[in-house]
Amino acid sequence: MESCPRPLITLTTDFGLHDPYVGIMKGVILNVYPNCRIIDITHAVHSQDILGGGFALKSSYRFFPKGSIHVAVVDPGVGSLRRPILFQTENYFFVGPDNGIFSPSLEEEHHIQAYHLTSDRFFLKPTSHTFHGRDIFAPVAGWLARGTPPHEFGPLIEDWVKLSLPALKHEKGGLQGTILWIDKFGNVITNIKAGKLPDTSGQPVLRVGNHEIANHLSSYSEGLPGALFTIWGSSGFLEISANRESAAALLGVQAGRTFEIVSSL
Amino acid sequence: MESCPRPLITLTTDFGLHDPYVGIMKGVILNVYPNCRIIDITHAVHSQDILGGGFALKSSYRFFPKGSIHVAVVDPGVGSLRRPILFQTENYFFVGPDNGIFSPSLEEEHHIQAYHLTSDRFFLKPTSHTFHGRDIFAPVAGWLARGTPPHEFGPLIEDWVKLSLPALKHEKGGLQGTILWIDKFGNVITNIKAGKLPDTSGQPVLRVGNHEIANHLSSYSEGLPGALFTIWGSSGFLEISANRESAAALLGVQAGRTFEIVSSL
Amino acid sequence: MESCPRPLITLTTDFGLHDPYVGIMKGVILNVYPNCRIIDITHAVHSQDILGGGFALKSSYRFFPKGSIHVAVVDPGVGSLRRPILFQTENYFFVGPDNGIFSPSLEEEHHIQAYHLTSDRFFLKPTSHTFHGRDIFAPVAGWLARGTPPHEFGPLIEDWVKLSLPALKHEKGGLQGTILWIDKFGNVITNIKAGKLPDTSGQPVLRVGNHEIANHLSSYSEGLPGALFTIWGSSGFLEISANRESAAALLGVQAGRTFEIVSSL
Repeated sequence: MESCPRPLITLTTDFGLHDPYVGIMKGVILNVYPNCRIIDITHAVHSQDILGGGFALKSSYRFFPKGSIHVAVVDPGVGSLRRPILFQTENYFFVGPDNGIFSPSLEEEHHIQAYHLTSDRFFLKPTSHTFHGRDIFAPVAGWLARGTPPHEFGPLIEDWVKLSLPALKHEKGGLQGTILWIDKFGNVITNIKAGKLPDTSGQPVLRVGNHEIANHLSSYSEGLPGALFTIWGSSGFLEISANRESAAALLGVQAGRTFEIVSSL
Repeated sequence: MESCPRPLITLTTDFGLHDPYVGIMKGVILNVYPNCRIIDITHAVHSQDILGGGFALKSSYRFFPKGSIHVAVVDPGVGSLRRPILFQTENYFFVGPDNGIFSPSLEEEHHIQAYHLTSDRFFLKPTSHTFHGRDIFAPVAGWLARGTPPHEFGPLIEDWVKLSLPALKHEKGGLQGTILWIDKFGNVITNIKAGKLPDTSGQPVLRVGNHEIANHLSSYSEGLPGALFTIWGSSGFLEISANRESAAALLGVQAGRTFEIVSSL
Repeated sequence: MESCPRPLITLTTDFGLHDPYVGIMKGVILNVYPNCRIIDITHAVHSQDILGGGFALKSSYRFFPKGSIHVAVVDPGVGSLRRPILFQTENYFFVGPDNGIFSPSLEEEHHIQAYHLTSDRFFLKPTSHTFHGRDIFAPVAGWLARGTPPHEFGPLIEDWVKLSLPALKHEKGGLQGTILWIDKFGNVITNIKAGKLPDTSGQPVLRVGNHEIANHLSSYSEGLPGALFTIWGSSGFLEISANRESAAALLGVQAGRTFEIVSSL
């Protein structure tokens, strides 16, 4: 067996685990490079939710060994003119559709080079219009993991698609945040980053509908039964949580919902 | 460590990922053959849906390296007289219950040899009547992956169980199709195979309840909001789809439902 | 690459597969020890259900190769005073919170040594108060898999937390059992262990609400349509089941529900 200059491939998709799509992608990768290690980040991104996939990857990619290849496929434009793309940064590779899914991760990376994947000798044949995860991204990732240099997959481009996670917004004199993600425990992950609040001193007070959340804790287990609090979450964003309960259910909110950031009571 | 003449084992079951059953099967395999690679195809086959498991495996197995061992366990007859079986074909191995789950895959394979798994020295002891995935199929797959020749597991047989995916049917002068699978995106996968429609020239028009689907597209993103269309899916079957919406929800259908194939408007 | 004196790491959590948390833990492990093999037992333990996680692990851990490292994280006390812990037994290692999740497994193990994980040079920095799976348990398991001796992670302790699965109880002159787990098929797994019933001769008759289950079978497929029966399940506990139907749905029960054990009709 040849050497493996890239340590592993991760997968982030909206394919779910009900269908065989993820297994098929792994089969294609292993057909190209039988020794390659493949790790699932998540396949439960909401269907066609590019920014949700971008958030999941941004929360995760930097915990993997340098040189890892991150494949992300949330791809409503599959089969259209949207380009397949490969990014190389100082530390990682990213492979998937050029629709902005990598933007949240790339914000933190340096020395970004982007290649338009045009060398169809690396693609599965026939190449479908409906499953580029299988036909383009999986084999390209496999060849990349085997050691193929990035420039062999296509030309450098500069005009890749850029998307941003929702930013804090000034609205009616106040500051408005957005819920980025609700996790399995019902923790409500906001777009408030540590150290990025302009005006408020100390911990922000949040108003979500009729609920005002002024209590700030540093571990979940300090929370009183039924009481909402804010906490700095493990991904670096402020979360609204409750001890052994779903804050999202207590608030009745979903991802995408906005809320008010109140400077002080 | 000894050499691995079979590159990997895949798993397709109706066990779900809620219970530890799939993890236990992997433990048993790795106890037999610590270096073996194991890939999940899906564990979300509907409970006891042999043909659903057969369809999932048929869609997937050929994307894996030659020599791969495909284990499939949808096994309502576990503990009864149904036989445990091992198929060897030109390209692959298949291990599981002899209940027809491998039939859809075997239709496309050549040089099929079937072995009745009777050599209980390869089984886990005590061998339960309720979990042959753990006690028979996992250890047999592990020993097979280590290089044990197929004939050591039991005698050749010829009378294995054969099942077929639902065929197109002539009904009341018309042609009737069946929905094989609904995927996570709500794509409705039919039993119409590319090139297998007898009468219609061009693309078929489908009638599902009150819905007539006459529009045919080649990529999902061409679809208009709320509009149903047909598209050749990545597994080679005709699908009914909608752009960024669930066609299954728009139609109100589930797997197993039949529909009419209309030659032309 | 150095040698791997521990064959693999298993993961049992209540993190679900919706969020990237499990993938992140794997990234951290592979950053420490790129060659380590990681197997999922389950991530679908009910949120904060320590005994549910304990039951899942108890059903599974012994099927893995000796020397395996079992990481379990159901951790409502994360960030509080609850200790992080490492158990070494004759056959296995266990890593996670000291909250009793390992107790059901340790009941069957010998030569137990427990280490309080205090050597923070093995932890991810900064170490959060909300995700010790990522910051403490994953890297400790990775270093342990690489061959770090257990005593390097912290001092031996004796007073670890002990929890028990619900025992059979004498209530109002009768014997009361508890439902431990409902599996994906609707099998109702009770806390009646083979050979552990004190009074009844032969197979026990169970009364659950208005249902009396007196029929005992040895394989699922012997069951008549709609009929409940008891069967010795693959994990060694008595189950209430139905052939190709959900016994839990027929009974209308959930885990934690108690029932009566009737000696004889």
